Amino acid sequence: MLLSRHLFSKVNQHFISQLERVLGKEAVKITTGEAGENLHDWRRHVGRIPDVIVVPKDVGQVSAVLKTCNESSIPVVPFSTTTGLDGFANTPEKGVFIDLMSMDKIVEVNTSDFNCFVEPGVTHETLNQHLHKTGLWFPGDPGADASICGMAAMGASGTKAARYGTMVQNVLNLEIVLPNGDVLYTAGKDRRPRKSAAGYNLTKLFVGSKGTLGVITQAAVRLYARPAICSVGICPFQTVNKAIEAVVATLQCSVPIAKIEFLDAATVAACNHYSKLTLVESPTLFLEFHGNSEAEVAEQASLVGEIFASNDGREFTWYHAPEEQKKIWASLHSAYYAILSQKNNVKGLRIHFSLPTSALAKEVAETRKDIDESNIFGAVMGHVGDGRFHCIFLVDESNQDEMKVVQELSDRIVKRVLASGGSCMGERGIGISKRKYLENECGEVAVNTMIAIKKALDPKGIMNPNELFPKN
Amino acid sequence: MLLSRHLFSKVNQHFISQLERVLGKEAVKITTGEAGENLHDWRRHVGRIPDVIVVPKDVGQVSAVLKTCNESSIPVVPFSTTTGLDGFANTPEKGVFIDLMSMDKIVEVNTSDFNCFVEPGVTHETLNQHLHKTGLWFPGDPGADASICGMAAMGASGTKAARYGTMVQNVLNLEIVLPNGDVLYTAGKDRRPRKSAAGYNLTKLFVGSKGTLGVITQAAVRLYARPAICSVGICPFQTVNKAIEAVVATLQCSVPIAKIEFLDAATVAACNHYSKLTLVESPTLFLEFHGNSEAEVAEQASLVGEIFASNDGREFTWYHAPEEQKKIWASLHSAYYAILSQKNNVKGLRIHFSLPTSALAKEVAETRKDIDESNIFGAVMGHVGDGRFHCIFLVDESNQDEMKVVQELSDRIVKRVLASGGSCMGERGIGISKRKYLENECGEVAVNTMIAIKKALDPKGIMNPNELFPKN
Repeated sequence: MLLSRHLFSKVNQHFISQLERVLGKEAVKITTGEAGENLHDWRRHVGRIPDVIVVPKDVGQVSAVLKTCNESSIPVVPFSTTTGLDGFANTPEKGVFIDLMSMDKIVEVNTSDFNCFVEPGVTHETLNQHLHKTGLWFPGDPGADASICGMAAMGASGTKAARYGTMVQNVLNLEIVLPNGDVLYTAGKDRRPRKSAAGYNLTKLFVGSKGTLGVITQAAVRLYARPAICSVGICPFQTVNKAIEAVVATLQCSVPIAKIEFLDAATVAACNHYSKLTLVESPTLFLEFHGNSEAEVAEQASLVGEIFASNDGREFTWYHAPEEQKKIWASLHSAYYAILSQKNNVKGLRIHFSLPTSALAKEVAETRKDIDESNIFGAVMGHVGDGRFHCIFLVDESNQDEMKVVQELSDRIVKRVLASGGSCMGERGIGISKRKYLENECGEVAVNTMIAIKKALDPKGIMNPNELFPKN
Repeated sequence: MLLSRHLFSKVNQHFISQLERVLGKEAVKITTGEAGENLHDWRRHVGRIPDVIVVPKDVGQVSAVLKTCNESSIPVVPFSTTTGLDGFANTPEKGVFIDLMSMDKIVEVNTSDFNCFVEPGVTHETLNQHLHKTGLWFPGDPGADASICGMAAMGASGTKAARYGTMVQNVLNLEIVLPNGDVLYTAGKDRRPRKSAAGYNLTKLFVGSKGTLGVITQAAVRLYARPAICSVGICPFQTVNKAIEAVVATLQCSVPIAKIEFLDAATVAACNHYSKLTLVESPTLFLEFHGNSEAEVAEQASLVGEIFASNDGREFTWYHAPEEQKKIWASLHSAYYAILSQKNNVKGLRIHFSLPTSALAKEVAETRKDIDESNIFGAVMGHVGDGRFHCIFLVDESNQDEMKVVQELSDRIVKRVLASGGSCMGERGIGISKRKYLENECGEVAVNTMIAIKKALDPKGIMNPNELFPKN
């Protein structure tokens, strides 16, 4: 079963006039086809130049755009902050790109229900500034100041997922414009109960659907009480293995740590250089503890301290001042750029993977060993509290030999992760095609089931085509 | 858009022979059509008598049964413990019922990853006995000793959802036999990472799909560390309103209470009588606190005590011994029967609803007031920690006047719950049709989207027909 690939760009005067009638002339930008007009994301994945970029102001306009595009079978790619790293907003198809950043209202905050409704132009930092006086916050934070609706579309995890869950847990309801222009409320309009079992769970289906089933125009998300106390601790280890074993032991004791981030020695060195830090350059764990009282945080820290000590962890360095903490996390958020800055004229190719806790120590250590034994400069880091890792390889894309080595390295790591019950996500630009990778991971029946759903909800295949189920 | 309703029972000798060839003769029971052969659930919802009941032993046999039924367009209804309350296993269609209780293996327990794989015949009590020595447990518990796969199919919440989440959060992977006999692993075969974003989230789509998209033959679920300390406290209140306001304040302080159950005075009285308790007969909250230390539980209890006192809560009664606690919860689990026992020759009709925290106090108090002002005997109780409530009305179904009053009462409550952003689930046997109720709650576009998914995955409409999207 394959998706229909017969999409043509039929952007003619009549089509443009239709869009202009709906949105107003100023909100319809026709590209000239010159280089530089293509979108690129933070990793500089560059797609084709779209035919048109439209800037709708509300859900009605998005609906009209989709209806118009659907009638003419013209591909549609929604985007907002373009802070993603996996090029999902960079379709290889031409067509209409929808810039959702003008829809930037915080529609409703229900402080006593711990939830709020936001439009696609609202980022988590903007929302948290807005919430400042309420004592609540939205803990989701993938590093960049991403759109919350975009995070929902991507099924983002964020660095604090170990304690607060991922977008799958935190999205309560979505307003979606379907390809035919219909407006869907995945949990019912204005509905925000703590639980519903009415029909199929459409909310969770759309979270992580990456713009392939419709355009998210509003998201209701869960908020949390902002913790009274927040401490950050950094602990270097002798070896990758010991660091990860300490994480595993901590997870198995169910300590509710907000963040556990791992950087290997190469990444720490890159961050020291790039962000002017003076960290010990060895495999290191960065932790954030949240609590309602000093005592609560102290109890967590003491338990983790014991676990780390018994895994040859060195001394913790503690950061209590918000400004210091902010600096630490900002440097981790820039780790990708820090690594990139280590070499000239290279591109950073990434693999993400997610592992069962029990496989973490072995897999991460073997991955690091594989990289060491290759001639490739590679860094390993991860949101280990949630079992997730990234590898970044610096490669000269014009060097065929190097690309081949990276390909083999990547294949080997992916194969081993899958064999140990893990998941490989966003393996893009390296190696196997995404369809094949999806099949490897989920099986042919799962991919066929996903394609059947895609066809049912987007029969003409206009939504973010070539994502998830590419041609090859 | 309506589902095809042209299903016919084509159970002939050829079809039976096909089933017998796959399963063996002893595993294919042909009904004689006599009363009593129909399944009924705990609420005695009675469906039609099936043509055949089959007892498969493994996923291969389930696959062969579905393939055979699909080829002949014969309806299929899977069932296991039949401990449900909403009649989902009681299709009004004839056809093949699949008894999954013989598939009762605990396939795999991964203690260091906190998860396990179980077949449909495994109940949560069986699993927890099996896990006893590991220090882990599965906290899901809807009251009855239900099948874990069945709980996944129903999207069950369980009484400890406030702390441990519902099946939506706790199911990690499902093995599903699709209507055409294909075997789907929603998160990939043997895969159990802590997070995956590979394609659409099929796991969450199938959780709560109520046997309408396929047969769950295995579930991987999350396990938790069994808490070292568990205390149960009971606190009576002056009024319904004050009790629920105390719950709201507790939820808003993010105290991680394992259970908060509410019984109104009528239910407490019924439980006293039925379970031989001596509780104060006023609106009452039943709480369970979990923690790793006495100090942790004491801190939670002290905070909650303050909140309750400021809402005119009376004295807490504490139960520390496991046997005492078990007795309390057993009596709450029997509350439905306790209420039923209050009158002779009546049926208990229920409405469930789920509310945003901020609407809880007002809605529950008004619901209680509505019942008081009617001539109907009604009880209100709820898993309030999760924002969920049940009303039970005792009615003589042959009394048309009484049925009319219950109908109006139910309509009024449902309407108000929906207006305050809540959800009404399982409103069955009373009032509006389920399709209309689904539309009221989710909107027409959502119901059409669900039907499109149903059609895509079950084109012949054989799986649990008339569920979710009935004819009327």
